[in-house]
Amino acid sequence: MRRLDASDPGFAAAFDALANDRRESDTDVSTDVAAIIARVKAEGDVALADYTARFDRFDLETRGWSISKEECAAAYEALAPELRDALDLAAERIRAYHAAQLPEDRDYRDGTGARLGARWRAVDAAGVYVPGGRAAYPSSVLMNLLPAKVAGVERIVMMTPTPDGETNPVVMAAAHIGGVDEIWRVGGAQAVAALAYGTTKIAPVDVVTGPGNAWVAEAKRQVYGVVGIDMVAGPSEIVVVADNKNEPHVIAADLLSQAEHDPTSQSILFTDDGDFADAVAAAVAGIIPTLNTAPTMQESWADNGAVIVVPTLADAIPLCDRLAPEHLELAVDPAEADALFAKVRHAGSVFLGRQTPEAIGDYVAGPNHVLPTGRRARFSSGLSVTDFMKRTSFLALDDASLAAIGPAAVALAGAEGLPAHALSVANRLNKDSL
Amino acid sequence: MRRLDASDPGFAAAFDALANDRRESDTDVSTDVAAIIARVKAEGDVALADYTARFDRFDLETRGWSISKEECAAAYEALAPELRDALDLAAERIRAYHAAQLPEDRDYRDGTGARLGARWRAVDAAGVYVPGGRAAYPSSVLMNLLPAKVAGVERIVMMTPTPDGETNPVVMAAAHIGGVDEIWRVGGAQAVAALAYGTTKIAPVDVVTGPGNAWVAEAKRQVYGVVGIDMVAGPSEIVVVADNKNEPHVIAADLLSQAEHDPTSQSILFTDDGDFADAVAAAVAGIIPTLNTAPTMQESWADNGAVIVVPTLADAIPLCDRLAPEHLELAVDPAEADALFAKVRHAGSVFLGRQTPEAIGDYVAGPNHVLPTGRRARFSSGLSVTDFMKRTSFLALDDASLAAIGPAAVALAGAEGLPAHALSVANRLNKDSL
Repeated sequence: MRRLDASDPGFAAAFDALANDRRESDTDVSTDVAAIIARVKAEGDVALADYTARFDRFDLETRGWSISKEECAAAYEALAPELRDALDLAAERIRAYHAAQLPEDRDYRDGTGARLGARWRAVDAAGVYVPGGRAAYPSSVLMNLLPAKVAGVERIVMMTPTPDGETNPVVMAAAHIGGVDEIWRVGGAQAVAALAYGTTKIAPVDVVTGPGNAWVAEAKRQVYGVVGIDMVAGPSEIVVVADNKNEPHVIAADLLSQAEHDPTSQSILFTDDGDFADAVAAAVAGIIPTLNTAPTMQESWADNGAVIVVPTLADAIPLCDRLAPEHLELAVDPAEADALFAKVRHAGSVFLGRQTPEAIGDYVAGPNHVLPTGRRARFSSGLSVTDFMKRTSFLALDDASLAAIGPAAVALAGAEGLPAHALSVANRLNKDSL
Repeated sequence: MRRLDASDPGFAAAFDALANDRRESDTDVSTDVAAIIARVKAEGDVALADYTARFDRFDLETRGWSISKEECAAAYEALAPELRDALDLAAERIRAYHAAQLPEDRDYRDGTGARLGARWRAVDAAGVYVPGGRAAYPSSVLMNLLPAKVAGVERIVMMTPTPDGETNPVVMAAAHIGGVDEIWRVGGAQAVAALAYGTTKIAPVDVVTGPGNAWVAEAKRQVYGVVGIDMVAGPSEIVVVADNKNEPHVIAADLLSQAEHDPTSQSILFTDDGDFADAVAAAVAGIIPTLNTAPTMQESWADNGAVIVVPTLADAIPLCDRLAPEHLELAVDPAEADALFAKVRHAGSVFLGRQTPEAIGDYVAGPNHVLPTGRRARFSSGLSVTDFMKRTSFLALDDASLAAIGPAAVALAGAEGLPAHALSVANRLNKDSL
């Protein structure tokens, strides 16, 4: 963990180093992934069966390619009531937040009488990747499936590895709630390739989303353009801006809620009180050994954690913008939180006030928890219904509106050396001469 | 040119072949591009100067790195009045259409008292690539710059090669109208690398858009994730659905307006009248030799053109959806155009009625002419202001709303094996025990 003080002479350089830290893995899997994709394109289901046998020790042909909707419904029914209610509440709130995101169509006439507009439609099919093992989070299943469902996608496909045949009942229950249409027991880059290019068994989709390991992420990157993808995901981060009216151990737990995800996660505290900074750091050290994610938290906090003392909390905001964090907590009085938030330029999701822990946003708040990481909040946004939709613009002219704007198009086509463009407009301007 | 008839026994296979045609170049420039990007990252301006000397025969150090705003203003003033007025009209209409796209922020309370919302902000800086030579279209300059300007981007950078020092005065005039802040005389993959990573002279940007050759397109693909990009662009296409009340030579010119762009462009006519189909094909053959883009049109039409006879025009729509064309003309009576459009699922931009040539949309209609190509209208949309913006979601809870939804978050965190997440919420639920 780094402790920085903005009043120290070396602060600018130290903060630059922190902001420019590249926590992403340098392992280059692009060649391996390209080979997997090429083989799935060439051999289809045979390649999927072979990779699945090899990587997941699971024979798709004898043990079954897919998980049925009925199995998911049964998993949902078998959940402990408290957990089932929690998933239902999360789904209800995620649906409501995303339904309000549905874009409005436009259809209007301008001053020339030209009719213009834009119309949104869902994509035909979406594929959601769900990791097996440690990172298989039912909350992520909901966060990916529900925006597609709310968008109106008619076919939603889930791909998930089931190593040694193992399935996660809570993930299956979430798939049931999310209304998935197909679940294939295929993971890794080969699953992404199947979604993008299709196989005999698995029809291709139009958009691929969902978290995954380095192979999955690289595969999504390589099929980008063949299909739409949600984003390039990197290690996640939280920045907490807190005053000394917070309990140190409460803020410490917030920082650790990010640190427990992965050793590459980053947790940073900005505060205007050096004693509070030290108290939080001490609380972090005290909490780590008490939780069973201790090894991950320890590594993340040691390598990437930071506690930064600033003269005033307002001074933290431009520094925070440099980090463009995935998550930002403004743990101060409500009015001050609003004032600070008004100055924030770059953050994926912001949590206002002392009673709004980031972890709420991971589960039940409603906004999507799939957010831009690794400074990408500078230019990208959390997952939304529009990631599963596309916009078609349209135009209708009559004689009058064509006469009003057509000659300018002819002039510009001429200047660009495109005579057929000019002719196509001019033909209609001179209808009497046809 | 292929002539297909939906009533022929071999039609399904022939149409499949047409729809699956991959017109994109197979030239693999990815290794070359990766080397250029790596060198620009390592050597910065030195690399830019060297590549520019080599590829554009232009010495940046002695002849100047940039084109000034004053030069652009002078180019604008020097334009022929008709052309200047045409550019001004185009800009005014593009601005108006895109201003109406500006997304609304959300800020509301739900039934628990939780405050939720989303806030949009422009990115800090955008870079627009503008090709030199044949494909340097002032209309594209406006179509890329104005959405960024309307979005509120504070720094807009243009990169354009000036081979042998040559500049295009209409492009410079368009840059003036678009309100560009910097223009650098750098092109190719090296320009994209400079935008993404920055050099001593050129500060990095957050989003890179604009058309370019295979090197530029591959460079954008490789820097995707470091910056946002508009899209992966492929060869463009037009589909015209027309009845026999159109003049054949008018529809022929529409088809050729796409064919003159590039030999890989594709122009396809659907009609319900075989005689009309033949008349259009004859008109195409007649027009080609009369225009100075004849060689390009000839190659595009011969290789990629198609005339398809369908029993009714409604039968064309599902076929058209398979093609997901960049541009779709519905050259029929207005009411029929509306009815057909209601059935269209996949198209970048649609032109309704006999008096709405696609070429109007390239210049002065208002909607963006940067559109998804190569079947990507299945999942992606034309360039818009939101490509230069990002959304930050936010949440504020009080004791009551946290009490309402917090326990569900604790339950889900427990099920996912993330104890620090659970602790971070539970700490605040049990304030009395702190």
